Amino acid sequence: MAKIIECVPNFSEGRSKEVVESIVDEIRGIEGVKLLDYSMDEDHNRSVVTFIGVPRGVQRAAISAAIKAAELIDMEKHTGGHPRLGATDVIPFIPIRESSIEECVEIAREVAREIAERLSIPTFLYEAAATRPERKNLANIRKGQYEGMKTRIKEEGWEPDFGPREVHPKSGATVVGARMPLIAFNVNLGTSDINIAKKIARVVREGGGGLKNVMAMGVMLEEKNIAQVSMNMINYRQTPLYRSYEMVKMEAKRYGVPVIGSEIVGLTPVDALVDVAEYYLQLEGFSREQILESHLYE
Amino acid sequence: MAKIIECVPNFSEGRSKEVVESIVDEIRGIEGVKLLDYSMDEDHNRSVVTFIGVPRGVQRAAISAAIKAAELIDMEKHTGGHPRLGATDVIPFIPIRESSIEECVEIAREVAREIAERLSIPTFLYEAAATRPERKNLANIRKGQYEGMKTRIKEEGWEPDFGPREVHPKSGATVVGARMPLIAFNVNLGTSDINIAKKIARVVREGGGGLKNVMAMGVMLEEKNIAQVSMNMINYRQTPLYRSYEMVKMEAKRYGVPVIGSEIVGLTPVDALVDVAEYYLQLEGFSREQILESHLYE
Repeated sequence: MAKIIECVPNFSEGRSKEVVESIVDEIRGIEGVKLLDYSMDEDHNRSVVTFIGVPRGVQRAAISAAIKAAELIDMEKHTGGHPRLGATDVIPFIPIRESSIEECVEIAREVAREIAERLSIPTFLYEAAATRPERKNLANIRKGQYEGMKTRIKEEGWEPDFGPREVHPKSGATVVGARMPLIAFNVNLGTSDINIAKKIARVVREGGGGLKNVMAMGVMLEEKNIAQVSMNMINYRQTPLYRSYEMVKMEAKRYGVPVIGSEIVGLTPVDALVDVAEYYLQLEGFSREQILESHLYE
Repeated sequence: MAKIIECVPNFSEGRSKEVVESIVDEIRGIEGVKLLDYSMDEDHNRSVVTFIGVPRGVQRAAISAAIKAAELIDMEKHTGGHPRLGATDVIPFIPIRESSIEECVEIAREVAREIAERLSIPTFLYEAAATRPERKNLANIRKGQYEGMKTRIKEEGWEPDFGPREVHPKSGATVVGARMPLIAFNVNLGTSDINIAKKIARVVREGGGGLKNVMAMGVMLEEKNIAQVSMNMINYRQTPLYRSYEMVKMEAKRYGVPVIGSEIVGLTPVDALVDVAEYYLQLEGFSREQILESHLYE
């Protein structure tokens, strides 16, 4: 079966449709790659592009898009409400099927090196690809932004992972990395008391002694008049959806509150749902090869 | 999202690799179609081919394969242990994604008509495509086999749905139809008493006042020394896997026997597993478009 990787690069242009279309066209043109979505934000002057495909194709698409962005975007002229370092600001690679975070780290390194070599743009590795702890966090790398990085890059500990120790005068710097897909998973409670949702959220999340890889908060669904535990599942392989669902249910019992539903917002890898089916059916020895559709994109 | 149809034609040749390869090559050559598997049975002198793809491609592949089979197989010379009517013996079309049984009936009709017209082979429609009740069942149509059909086709009520009222002297007759995918789903019990599995099977299946679209029997897993309720789910959309799993669990309670696992044998459409996840997580408003991989074969 084909390995599938997702890539969600962010570019520092959110106003010129022409520029963004030119960048996106680079991705569209590559075999084995499928553009899922792109959105432009005028206030942030930034666009986010989502595509998936086979590793080699995704790698090529990311580099081609970065080359086009370097050609069309000038950071000296860029203004916008969102922190940014470069024309191609950040490129995360995300394992979707039959691929591991380690493979995505490998791709991130190669892409970071190639962008640095071909375009003379300094590149930094972040998240799972980070080469030192203080670079894990993207916000930490982006502190001071494009303008601040001009001097910061000369400071001790801030040499780039690849490329010159100098911010590119037009393209800035680029952050490249690897992370797991994020699933937005919300569980609805049979109560209109938001405090119960907040209390449950606090103990279900990693920070509150609950589940690793789970961020949670209590919110109110006004139109339905019910409280909800809204979660970000940042590693569904280690911490599957059913575990947080059952955990919310279990904690809700203390308040005599039932779970009345759940929702997934946005996209999910199918594996996250297959995991759930496997758990509840107590499925033994099930292989992803048994899924008919998996053979469609071999 | 792309509609995906499965097709599992059976051909009356299971000994000559060359002949079967020539037939399979017709399928391999068609865009939008993916060959999943083919197997040859020497005793039955018969081969079973499995492929999936977009409706138009699958339709073309089925016709091309039937034309090649008509060229290479001579029913006058055919012997084998399995009931058969023609060179291309039976062609079922099966909805896999974003497609309905009605669409497969439509394809079955068109394929049956085209085979009849282009090859002068009489064709019969069966299962969901059947035009009269006594043709729903394949075994019923195939009674008397190739040799018997020569006279039977002249009898009242046995005119073919398409083509001449005469068995083709070389290619025989072909049965074409539509059915739902079959999922082989087994539930393991925490007992070595096969009688308990048999009793549960008897009440869980449609014939015993249990679930529609479920066939079940009790079997013994010798190497594990446990009893199993072995089921064929013949319409997972109407009767999903979780329902039969929960039903087995519920009936097993009467004997104080726990369900200790389950297995899916062979292939399953991913939808059957997504249904399970939706049920147990009480997912609301989930759309198949939210599955990342679904966009890979648009």
